[in-house]
Amino acid sequence: MKNTFGNHLCVTLFGESHGSCIGAVLDGIAPGIEIDEAYIRARLAQRRPTGAISTARREQDDFSIVSGVFEGKTTGAPLCILIPNADTNSKSYQKDILRPGHADFTAACKYHGYQDYRGGGHFSGRLTAPLVALGAIVQLALEQKGILIGSHISTLAGVRDAEFSDLEAGIRALNTKAFPTLCDEAGENMKEQIRLAAQAGDSVGGILESVILGLPAGLGEPWFDTVEGLLSHALFSIPAVKGVEFGAGFGFADLRGSQANDAFCIEDGRIRTVTNRNGGINGGITNGMPVLFRTVIKPTPSIFLEQDSVNPVTMEPQRLQIQGRHDPAIIHRARVVVDSVAALCIADLLVGRFGTDYLSSASAAGN
Amino acid sequence: MKNTFGNHLCVTLFGESHGSCIGAVLDGIAPGIEIDEAYIRARLAQRRPTGAISTARREQDDFSIVSGVFEGKTTGAPLCILIPNADTNSKSYQKDILRPGHADFTAACKYHGYQDYRGGGHFSGRLTAPLVALGAIVQLALEQKGILIGSHISTLAGVRDAEFSDLEAGIRALNTKAFPTLCDEAGENMKEQIRLAAQAGDSVGGILESVILGLPAGLGEPWFDTVEGLLSHALFSIPAVKGVEFGAGFGFADLRGSQANDAFCIEDGRIRTVTNRNGGINGGITNGMPVLFRTVIKPTPSIFLEQDSVNPVTMEPQRLQIQGRHDPAIIHRARVVVDSVAALCIADLLVGRFGTDYLSSASAAGN
Amino acid sequence: MKNTFGNHLCVTLFGESHGSCIGAVLDGIAPGIEIDEAYIRARLAQRRPTGAISTARREQDDFSIVSGVFEGKTTGAPLCILIPNADTNSKSYQKDILRPGHADFTAACKYHGYQDYRGGGHFSGRLTAPLVALGAIVQLALEQKGILIGSHISTLAGVRDAEFSDLEAGIRALNTKAFPTLCDEAGENMKEQIRLAAQAGDSVGGILESVILGLPAGLGEPWFDTVEGLLSHALFSIPAVKGVEFGAGFGFADLRGSQANDAFCIEDGRIRTVTNRNGGINGGITNGMPVLFRTVIKPTPSIFLEQDSVNPVTMEPQRLQIQGRHDPAIIHRARVVVDSVAALCIADLLVGRFGTDYLSSASAAGN
Amino acid sequence: MKNTFGNHLCVTLFGESHGSCIGAVLDGIAPGIEIDEAYIRARLAQRRPTGAISTARREQDDFSIVSGVFEGKTTGAPLCILIPNADTNSKSYQKDILRPGHADFTAACKYHGYQDYRGGGHFSGRLTAPLVALGAIVQLALEQKGILIGSHISTLAGVRDAEFSDLEAGIRALNTKAFPTLCDEAGENMKEQIRLAAQAGDSVGGILESVILGLPAGLGEPWFDTVEGLLSHALFSIPAVKGVEFGAGFGFADLRGSQANDAFCIEDGRIRTVTNRNGGINGGITNGMPVLFRTVIKPTPSIFLEQDSVNPVTMEPQRLQIQGRHDPAIIHRARVVVDSVAALCIADLLVGRFGTDYLSSASAAGN
Repeated sequence: MKNTFGNHLCVTLFGESHGSCIGAVLDGIAPGIEIDEAYIRARLAQRRPTGAISTARREQDDFSIVSGVFEGKTTGAPLCILIPNADTNSKSYQKDILRPGHADFTAACKYHGYQDYRGGGHFSGRLTAPLVALGAIVQLALEQKGILIGSHISTLAGVRDAEFSDLEAGIRALNTKAFPTLCDEAGENMKEQIRLAAQAGDSVGGILESVILGLPAGLGEPWFDTVEGLLSHALFSIPAVKGVEFGAGFGFADLRGSQANDAFCIEDGRIRTVTNRNGGINGGITNGMPVLFRTVIKPTPSIFLEQDSVNPVTMEPQRLQIQGRHDPAIIHRARVVVDSVAALCIADLLVGRFGTDYLSSASAAGN
Repeated sequence: MKNTFGNHLCVTLFGESHGSCIGAVLDGIAPGIEIDEAYIRARLAQRRPTGAISTARREQDDFSIVSGVFEGKTTGAPLCILIPNADTNSKSYQKDILRPGHADFTAACKYHGYQDYRGGGHFSGRLTAPLVALGAIVQLALEQKGILIGSHISTLAGVRDAEFSDLEAGIRALNTKAFPTLCDEAGENMKEQIRLAAQAGDSVGGILESVILGLPAGLGEPWFDTVEGLLSHALFSIPAVKGVEFGAGFGFADLRGSQANDAFCIEDGRIRTVTNRNGGINGGITNGMPVLFRTVIKPTPSIFLEQDSVNPVTMEPQRLQIQGRHDPAIIHRARVVVDSVAALCIADLLVGRFGTDYLSSASAAGN
Repeated sequence: MKNTFGNHLCVTLFGESHGSCIGAVLDGIAPGIEIDEAYIRARLAQRRPTGAISTARREQDDFSIVSGVFEGKTTGAPLCILIPNADTNSKSYQKDILRPGHADFTAACKYHGYQDYRGGGHFSGRLTAPLVALGAIVQLALEQKGILIGSHISTLAGVRDAEFSDLEAGIRALNTKAFPTLCDEAGENMKEQIRLAAQAGDSVGGILESVILGLPAGLGEPWFDTVEGLLSHALFSIPAVKGVEFGAGFGFADLRGSQANDAFCIEDGRIRTVTNRNGGINGGITNGMPVLFRTVIKPTPSIFLEQDSVNPVTMEPQRLQIQGRHDPAIIHRARVVVDSVAALCIADLLVGRFGTDYLSSASAAGN
Repeated sequence: MKNTFGNHLCVTLFGESHGSCIGAVLDGIAPGIEIDEAYIRARLAQRRPTGAISTARREQDDFSIVSGVFEGKTTGAPLCILIPNADTNSKSYQKDILRPGHADFTAACKYHGYQDYRGGGHFSGRLTAPLVALGAIVQLALEQKGILIGSHISTLAGVRDAEFSDLEAGIRALNTKAFPTLCDEAGENMKEQIRLAAQAGDSVGGILESVILGLPAGLGEPWFDTVEGLLSHALFSIPAVKGVEFGAGFGFADLRGSQANDAFCIEDGRIRTVTNRNGGINGGITNGMPVLFRTVIKPTPSIFLEQDSVNPVTMEPQRLQIQGRHDPAIIHRARVVVDSVAALCIADLLVGRFGTDYLSSASAAGN
């Protein structure tokens, strides 16, 4: 379904980096959910570039919700959000040079040269802004159901963050931070690495580790629509994501079955697992333990170092010196996108399982 | 869509490990594709357990195609394949003990206790057999379009295989091998590790590395239906897959942008990339280079070592000593499943892009 | 999605009239629903040709459910049903003559000549048998929720049936009859018309009027997935259906708004409409009144009168004298197909609205 | 999929009658299609109320395309169109009275009272404006492929229009008319009937007859995604449509098979049918003849005559005297909506069959 994701709660994304606005439609959202504009703004702010470690492009992300909300609450009809593109500077972009690591070449192949190439067009990371806004709406509704989502930068340019001790407290702390690490010192060291890369005209990547707390057991399908399959499908849409793993992930290759299996136990009268190497998912279905996954974010492809490229018109080699305003790292900005995409995906599963009114406390109250 | 995968070429899977038969429906396949039963059998044989490193359950996988094929060729109507379950031994399976690492507990949560628990029921790896059969049909049709798919065990229990030198030759060699390694000695060492684990009543996992050769540039969508998103969605259905990465994958976390970007060049009058760290995909779209991905296969959860578990009826702890017939490793058997799932997923993309007759040379010929 | 219908509860159909078997997969069915094989057989019997007014082909429809049922109840995993083709007689069918009113020509266009042409192949009305079997399973589950579905032949060859007086009693009576009319005398007159047509080597059509009782208000979507849109989408799959109307239907063309609107009133403390000219649906959404619709069934295209046709190989005109065994009317057999398709469609809507366990009393009981 | 229609070329609709704007996203449109804004405006004008036979609400429908178009041509990325609501007058709408024949009651049931009730909210016929705009884009592209779509009012309040003589000339003439009848005198008589109904504070309905010319044979699927099923699914979304029939439609009930079958013949070296009672579709698949269908449009439910209703808050009977600005007939305005929906649906089928670039002449040229 191309630019639409979700089977029950569906997001359709549209827009280009240098068009008049970008936006998204959220369909299938329950009626009666309160819209907290301040929270949406706060989440958009966490995605927005800030300070020396980000691009100089400054967008206010002054969103407007043009449908699906009435008197401050969702109506149940499709919610469309628009975010204007204000600070565009299209002059830096040329159609006749392919930026390595970007989608310039593949866009031209797919769209036969008709694509809006300015700023990456429809491929721009800027399109994650409406995803974050919709994710914020859904995340608040999930919180009212006891479901929490959060992510930290577990590793960046050789610097490792601390591990989670208390998951809930960790998530709550991370969700207030602009640079999401559990250990502040690790965060400072990471930022220093970003600055060093920036000074070298280069960029860095890293790994985000995410947790979803409070999911009921029994979500997901054995074949095809596994929780892993659905989450990864959505996560790979985020520009720069090149790998997704659950629980011990690629580390499973070095374990034996006796180390990989999570033994069962009884705790507070409920069945749980003693360890959680399977990341809260068995056979594609949630088991009630925290869902744990990691996504790798490749280094921003826009670097200032000169690169080898090609002019697709003349079909001749050409050296490329990227101009414009770019991020030496996007992983700290990608964090809130990962959270948002996970929230949308999980909400879709919950709505499919429990029906269209699930996310709304209001409708349950018999309104 | 639960047990259905694909937007244009769709697979629907059904059956349980100990039911009368398992099967799948392939819908959207072009008319006029020849059915090579010997090739299907050969691929099923590569999935079938053999020798000391596999379960003793012996299934002939005597498939029958009951619809969609007429006079040896696909008709274009849905193709249904059935594979009988012959060598079932249900006595080893108990409803009242949860096997760690398996879907016993999550199935009970999802299906409220009504699931067919024998041999993992609908969650059983046995259901990959019809996937392999359908994958074989599609893979042959893809080959006629110049598209080749192959996988090797790149690492298992600390043993690493050689790397690809010539991709095409490597794939062709792998596809003839029962134990898919590029280096035979590495393969023997891996088998030795499997035997050691089996002797210890334990199991091992590993990593499969896969290549898709010959894809045209321009497949995939920027948002949601990226090639990475679609492939990972399908791959995570395969029991035991817990991570998927493309190109340099999680290795991107340690690279700078200048190392991660693939510079462009002209080769034989066409635009290519000098390196292929992005695994043939930029912005979610194929760039004409080989598509490279890796999947991690966790160690088989069925081990003979005693484990801690729980009796879900009495809600009391219980030691579990698994009986029955089990694989100390499934990665060599999973290889053909990964290839098949990748073939089905890629074919779906191609049919969506180029239309319903794409896979059929016959219809192109004007029949 | 081609041969699959439904967003939450999905049916995938496969098979050909003269293949080894036909069948269907039902995915998304709740666990714990009892399978009443006698009821399935009874519904299949109502679809099966009988007596002088039907084809002489006799199929026992000895179905087997090969997956998704365990110990007599649905498991929640996909349910696959197979029905063998026993009494096939392929000799009567020729590839080189196009039967008017049938899909011979369009099948050849679509499938480039690779279709299984025997007995209409995948287009055969015989494929409605698995739909009926699945419909029977779902219809019983719906009845436990207070939802009843039934249809009568409202008109056939100029003979009109009586109108419903008590809807529930009428439906219950119809569902026990082999030839579904409210008035038995009208039924006898219709059969006489069928016999007359048969004697003339010809066939007749008619109109089925259907009622769905007990639906909650609030089902359906304002845009695209209206109840009318979903039902008609499914109903037009039934071979020979060429028109679908709701409530006053085409009769609305002769009404003024003041006659077409259904005034609201209070009855037993609930809001109802005084009349039901809109057939229980406003704005695409159920209003809690009975859902009323009519489908027209065109005369069976297989007639014994000689017809003008064409030989597609020689591209020359050719007179056609159809041989074989054919129905002079199928409307009485189509009745149970209409009911089944409506049941599957309504169940899909309910599962989407209220969640995957909706149809199962068992899971609600906390199993 | 709720507010999204189409499998390959998808429309997502959003907005409310009295919100800031309404709009739609078209996803899957080929790159390189020229946007003819004058044509879009002309089609919107045909939907817009005009003169004495329509509501006094005057909307300029000043659309803006905010994505998916670059330098005057489609890019291939999702195209979002916005149309502002300018002339809203919300005072006439009350939440506490249910208008008969409208969706007020069903919306309240579905959305638990959170719906935007002003002017019908998301259910408003106003939402057909973006459908018409998108339909116009697609219709022009279809014309370049030789596919023409047009509709006339075949009957209204007892007045019948002439029948088509030359289909292509008829369609071209109809598409230039504000009040679409083949016979101008019949049109004047119909308008007179509308004026009479308006004077009586009442409204009228009617029947639209539509033709699609130039479709290739072989479109559609035998099961579920029949051409009839897809078209009707889409058409029933149009507010006030309560019936859809193809070819002879409900008239088949009075025919015998020998009258209903369309004999085959050879014409200009191609296989055609002598008659076209099946409306260009056999077995759900196009046969290359014109596709013919009729939709019944019920009388506008907004009438000025006093009606019986209910106050849903006090749950007491209440007389309703509708205020505001309303149409005594909408069938002439619905015409362009039917054409647009048919165009979108047919284009979806074509793109599925022939691939994503089908509608674009440009991409075929090797751009």
